[in-house]
This record gives sequence, structure tokens and C-alpha cells, in this order.
Amino acid sequence: MKSQVNRQQLVESTRSFLDSTQISFDEDTLRTWGCDWTRSFAVAPLAVVFPKTTEQVSALIRLAPDLKIQLVPSGGRTGLSGGAVASNGEVVVSLDRMNSILAFNPIDRMVRCQAGVITANLQDFARQNNLYYPVDFSSAGSSHIGGNVATNAGGIRVIRYGLTRDAVAGLTVVTGTGEVLQLNNGLIKNATGYDLRHLFIGSEGTLGIVVEAEIRLIPPPEPQQVMVLGVNHLSDMLSILETFHEKIDLSSFEFFSDLAMQKVIDHRGIAKPFDQSTQFYTLLEYDVSAEDTAVAAFNETIDAGWVSDGVISQSEAQSQALWALRDGITESIASYSPYKNDVSVPIAEIPEFLSEVDSLVASNYPDFEVCWFGHIGDGNLHLNILKPSTLSIDEFYQRCHSISPRLFEKIQSHGGSISAEHGVGLLKRDFLSYTRSPSEIELMRKLKDVFDPYGIMNPGKLLVPRAA
Amino acid sequence: MKSQVNRQQLVESTRSFLDSTQISFDEDTLRTWGCDWTRSFAVAPLAVVFPKTTEQVSALIRLAPDLKIQLVPSGGRTGLSGGAVASNGEVVVSLDRMNSILAFNPIDRMVRCQAGVITANLQDFARQNNLYYPVDFSSAGSSHIGGNVATNAGGIRVIRYGLTRDAVAGLTVVTGTGEVLQLNNGLIKNATGYDLRHLFIGSEGTLGIVVEAEIRLIPPPEPQQVMVLGVNHLSDMLSILETFHEKIDLSSFEFFSDLAMQKVIDHRGIAKPFDQSTQFYTLLEYDVSAEDTAVAAFNETIDAGWVSDGVISQSEAQSQALWALRDGITESIASYSPYKNDVSVPIAEIPEFLSEVDSLVASNYPDFEVCWFGHIGDGNLHLNILKPSTLSIDEFYQRCHSISPRLFEKIQSHGGSISAEHGVGLLKRDFLSYTRSPSEIELMRKLKDVFDPYGIMNPGKLLVPRAA
Repeated sequence: MKSQVNRQQLVESTRSFLDSTQISFDEDTLRTWGCDWTRSFAVAPLAVVFPKTTEQVSALIRLAPDLKIQLVPSGGRTGLSGGAVASNGEVVVSLDRMNSILAFNPIDRMVRCQAGVITANLQDFARQNNLYYPVDFSSAGSSHIGGNVATNAGGIRVIRYGLTRDAVAGLTVVTGTGEVLQLNNGLIKNATGYDLRHLFIGSEGTLGIVVEAEIRLIPPPEPQQVMVLGVNHLSDMLSILETFHEKIDLSSFEFFSDLAMQKVIDHRGIAKPFDQSTQFYTLLEYDVSAEDTAVAAFNETIDAGWVSDGVISQSEAQSQALWALRDGITESIASYSPYKNDVSVPIAEIPEFLSEVDSLVASNYPDFEVCWFGHIGDGNLHLNILKPSTLSIDEFYQRCHSISPRLFEKIQSHGGSISAEHGVGLLKRDFLSYTRSPSEIELMRKLKDVFDPYGIMNPGKLLVPRAA
Repeated sequence: MKSQVNRQQLVESTRSFLDSTQISFDEDTLRTWGCDWTRSFAVAPLAVVFPKTTEQVSALIRLAPDLKIQLVPSGGRTGLSGGAVASNGEVVVSLDRMNSILAFNPIDRMVRCQAGVITANLQDFARQNNLYYPVDFSSAGSSHIGGNVATNAGGIRVIRYGLTRDAVAGLTVVTGTGEVLQLNNGLIKNATGYDLRHLFIGSEGTLGIVVEAEIRLIPPPEPQQVMVLGVNHLSDMLSILETFHEKIDLSSFEFFSDLAMQKVIDHRGIAKPFDQSTQFYTLLEYDVSAEDTAVAAFNETIDAGWVSDGVISQSEAQSQALWALRDGITESIASYSPYKNDVSVPIAEIPEFLSEVDSLVASNYPDFEVCWFGHIGDGNLHLNILKPSTLSIDEFYQRCHSISPRLFEKIQSHGGSISAEHGVGLLKRDFLSYTRSPSEIELMRKLKDVFDPYGIMNPGKLLVPRAA
């Protein structure tokens, strides 16, 4: 359904509830707000609107069926799956101006914020109130809480604190019919039927628009200690995880390959943490009070031959320097136009899965570099294939695309997911059946019909549009 | 829809997949498996079936529309809202014989069990594997994992570990059309669209039957210390909670009124923990390593005048004796045929809410004793009205019922829930609109239609049946 209205008609129809600064047709604005961090999809919105209130969001949605416009909710636009890309004359609904923290209840440790609040701002707000918002990832400085909810964002501390889902105690959403729903009211216990809050979390804007969230904050952790270990055999990584996991409450258990670290070191011009290289590295973070136990666990892993070398932070500055080895990867490989895959498998399956995928890529694309990193404690691996400078982006992406089904088959055979934390969007829509059964996909379509009967919410994302 | 088949027809239709020991019409069996712990609903099932496999559950569901039978899933039958009561010629589907632990993956700390596994057995299994299943409540010795999932069971350690929902990493369910769905596969991260797992959690058997669950276990906690404090003013309870909450990681923060404690002491013939009575008591549980901090917090609460006396367990036996003051309440008041209400409000609202409800009951029923207890750290209160010996049960229940709408109005005005953790079932079905909006209820009906298009799954529970 391509929009049938022109710009003038859209302005006139929305004039009663949007002022002229809240609707834009400016080419730069269309280009910027019409897409996310992906670069492989067409960007062609009809307009961008900037509502300031829930009522404005609802009024716009109620107009949409008559105007025959479709809507693309837009948060911090840091998505990696095209979930916020407007490719087909849609109206982008940016939550940028709904960026207030509305209420704070210290007894319930609950903060109510609009969807456009930036993740880092919520983290800061928590800190100012001697509390903690644990969801964190590299795009926290731009991503919105609403977008995090829509994709159930994860990140680097899931092993200890869980995903965005685990912090959401209530949502206000506007459905595809413009109805405003207050879901769960921030309650801890509420056994009154189907939890629509959880249905909206991770729904990628296809059921409606998240306009407010009630987020439960937690007590701040102790100061954290960081350890980086050099590991030669991936299969040992799980023994290391188990050894530490048994003894201490890990805040992070990240991993990266030597190639990934090398890229960061080259890009940032920093020193290597070890003289000797190993195939893989793992970064662990834990409470400072667990230091002695952590050192004992470290010695066990050395004695067992799983770890060849290790470094423990002696200061906050050194902790940050060690984290930079992991945090800097995405930025350091950006110039290689990496073909990104974000997948998960049960933790126990990781070594076998990873070695199978390594062989798959090596045998098909001996000229491609593969950069592995991820959140191994969550079974979540980021597989980045780097573009050789001799290939055009189109050709490179095409070659990578052609391998995707075989990668997804391997994920399926290990009981994993084709998208661990980046969502489906446009990028993986055609491959959803590798993780969700035909029955589930059909049920998902019917659920979408319940909440979005006119098919106006984020069309074409997550589910392949039905044949007309 | 009253069943149109007779017993003989049911036996013949199911003969190909159920043997004669798996279907019962015996009056005792019908009476026992046709209800839960409620006693105020008619019990009149047509039959009870005991499937042993997912395939048998699916085959039965597929038969149901043609046979015009409706199905009531049945777990440990410890429910308090009539969610597993068969009042109208339904076929009860007992999960009793699907009680095996199927698989254990120590690296992912994941256990896959059938729905009929008893909660305490899963707790034991975890302990045998040096892990911990934290969901616990007084009926853990009878309740089933499947039933816990269907009601999102909570209990006494939610403040630290969350609800059943937080432990469920995967579900196998059979929908109202007999389709078998494997939901989420036990993955930590899986961003591939609507999370149907969470839709089934808390759905009270109205969308389908949970047949298996993948449960994530956690490391065992340290030995626990228990403290009971005497508190005269309810409003001080929140100051006490905040004082401890800021300093230590509480495993429990329970509360009970003096009347509640008195009933336990009388019933069990045990000693009072304090010489002097106070209006309320709170029971705290925490890691033994936090003992010094807890004592410091205790001194603060004494100095502030919030707490008049306190006792700290010096041994495991004394811990158990203190817990008995809280655990023993339900059993100790059972002979009073209590009219139970299980409600929640934001924690910050508790003192005002509780005093309003106390006045409401006192002014309307000065002859009734009100016994308060609950999980104050979760905003969850159990309000038990005790039957005077002079009243018949029917008359007593009728008088209590008549006050319910006014109680529910108060809950609504404080932004709370009419069912915190006991579910809706038959008991609160007619009052759902005090917590869920008309739009939400209409959406819930449509969701039920998606998963149970023939209206055969646990009819009349949660939602008022549509007018024929």
C-alpha cells in the first residue's frame, strides 16, 4: 500500500493537532529520520512527524487508514536490522520530542519515562538517585528507551541483569487503531490475564507505538573489576565460564577473536594487553569484593591449561582500557562495511557451532576475514564478515547474502535464533522460519491483525506482507 | 456449551490414543480432579483424562470440537481462584502423569521438565545439582510447574528472584487447535518477534495447555538469616523496607498482622517471639554475609522508633521457627473458612490503601475479624476475612462478596491489581474491569479467539463468556 496522499493533504489533515514544526518534508530530515544504522535499504519516507504527546500519536494513527498512510515508529535510529527504515512512502513517527522523565517513585524504585528518553540519560538519572539501570550497549548514547522496548535490547550485562524486558514494569502504547493502553501499571505482581506488556516488548513497532515505559531500577552494584584472559581453544571457553560462574556472580562474560582485537588495536593505536597472541580472548567483569575468589578461579583456569595469560584491572582507568578492547570493535571494523550477523544458540552449543560456521565461511569465502565477538555468557555471537577492499559493497553483500541460508540452517540445527538482540526488521524477515515455526508465524500474523487491523504499523517489518 | 457426548462416546473416540487407565468417570476422581482449593464452585466434570504425552494432549484437543467437549487443564489443584474447576460437564485434563524431568544442561543451567512436575521436586532437583529454583510458596509440595506457569506463580522470594515468568526460558504448549508450539527453545536472547511464551505465562489454560517448560536455574544462595521485627505503625513499614533495601539484598520482606500471628501461635501451640505485642510484624530474610549490615540497619530502625522489638535467628532451627509464624498463617486460619483476597498496589501506596480497607471492613462488618499478611516488598497483600462461627458459609460469603466491588474500587484508585498472584479464574472474572480496561479486555478476547477459535480451552475462566 503506497500512500495516496500528497504532502499538502497530510499537512491539512494533521493541522488540528500538529503544528508546523512537527511535520517535515525537508530532504535532509527525510533521509536522516527515514533510516537506522543499516545502509542497504532504500530510504523514501513521505514525511517525518514529531509528536509531543500520546494524544498526538493517537490522533495520527486514527487518521492513517482514511489517509491511506502507513507509519514507521522511529527511536534513536541505531537499529541494525532496518526496523525503523521507511522505504515506501511511509510517514515516520519520531519519538525525539517525547523525551521527558515523567515521574520517579523511590520506594518502588520506579521511573516513568517517555519513549524518546535516551538510554544513557536514564542511566544517568538512575545514578543521580543512587540507583542503577543495568541495560547497556555501545549505542546507549543515542538509542531510545522506546526503541529498546520495541526490540527487547540486550547488551553487555544480560548475564547478570537480563534484557530490557526484565526491567519493564509497565508500558503505555498506542495500538494500530489509535487506542491508548496502560499495560501493567508498574506493578510487580498482577495476575489478571494475558500480559500485553510482554507482547509489545520486542514487537518492533508492528503492533503499535510504545509512548511511555515504567522502568524498575535496581541498587547500584559494587565497583567492578575487569579481567581479560587469552584462550587458545574455543571449547575451553565454556570450561572457563563454568569455573567462574560457579564461584562468582559475573556482570559480564564477553568474548572476541584475535582478529577483532587486532582491529581495535590498529584503529585506536593502543597497546596489546599480552605479549603473546591467542586465538580468542574473554573479558570478565565482577564485583570488587569477589576479587580473591576470581583470582583463585583464574589460577584454576591457568592450571587446567585453558588460559594462557591474563590481565586484571588495577584501576578504573585500566578497567576502561580493557573494556575498550571489546567496546571498540564495532567502530574499528566500520570502515570494512561489515556484513553483520547477530545470532544465538544454547551456550553449550557454542564451540561446535562456531567452528562449523568458521569452516563454512572459510571454505566458501577464503578471501573474507571473519571477525567474531559477542556475549558468550548469553549464547549470543556477533559474526562480522569484513569486506575486502577489492569488492564493491553490492557485490560483497550479495555474496554474503547467498551464504545466509546455510548459516541459518546451522543455527536451526543447534536450536538457536537467527536474531539474538538486533531484531528482524527488514533484514531477516525472509528468514524468520529458521527460528519460528510456520504455526508460530501464522499466529503472529493473526496477533498483528488483532492490534493493527488496518495494516498501518511499521509495514513489512518482521513479517513478510501478505500477498495482496 | 454443555457437552453433548456421553461417557461411552468419549471412551470410543479416545480409544485409539488413551488406554482405559487414562480416562476416569469414577465419582471420587471426578470430585477430586474436578476442582482446586476453592470450595464455592459447583464441581461437575464429565470425565478426567490423564495423558502421558504431548501427542495425547494434542489428539484430545483435536477431537474436542467435533465431540463438543470443553477442556479444563488441571495441575496440582492448589489454585485459589477456581481456575481449574470443572463446573459444567467439561473434561478435565490432568497433567499428573506428565511428571518427568526430561533433560538437564548444566552449562546453560537449564532443566526441561514436563508440566506435571511438582514444584518441590524441581527445587530438590536443582539442589541435587548444586543449583537453586527460587520460586517458592506454601503449596510448593503439591503445585505443578505447568500450573505455576499458567498463573505466573509468585510467592515469598519475588523481591529478590522474581516470578515464575522470570525463570521460564522456553515452553511447549498445545493450542486450542491442537497445534504443538515450541516457544523460545530455552534461549536467553531471541529477538525474532512476538514472544508467545510470555503470552501463555499467566493465561490460566485459556489459550492452550502447557505441556513442558524449560526452566533456568540459578546458583544457590548463601545460607540465609531471618529477622522478625515488631512494628506499631504500618506507615513505618515502608521506612523499614527502604532502610534495609538500601543496604542489603533482601531475599524476603514479608508482613503479617498481630491477629495473623496470634492464630498461628494458638493453632500450633508455639511461643510468641516477643513479650510485647505490636500491631504488625515483618519477617526479613537475607544472606548470612550481610549480617553485620543487617544489624546496623536494624539499629537504625530501632533508633528511629519504627521498630519496637526484634529477633534474629541464631540457628537453622530458629530460622524455621520464625518462618513458621508466616508460613503457618494459611493453615491456621483455614478452620475460619476465610474469604480470601489477594491484591497488589504500588509499594508506596500500601499504608494508605491498607488503612482505607481496614476502615471499610470495620465500618461494614464490625463483627468480622480481618487477618492481613503478605509480601509487602512486592506490594502484594493477602486480605483474609474470617468467618464468625455464628454465620453459615453461604451467608458469610454473600456478605463478603457484597463488599468486593468497594474493595476493588479502592484498588483501582491506587493503581493496583485485583489479583496479585492467585489469578482470575472463576472467582474474579466478573471484576476484571477493575484492573484491565475495556479495550484490554476486548483485545484479550480476540487473542483467545486466535489461539482457541473453538472456545474449548478452560471455558468461563478469566473472561466472561460471550453471550451466545
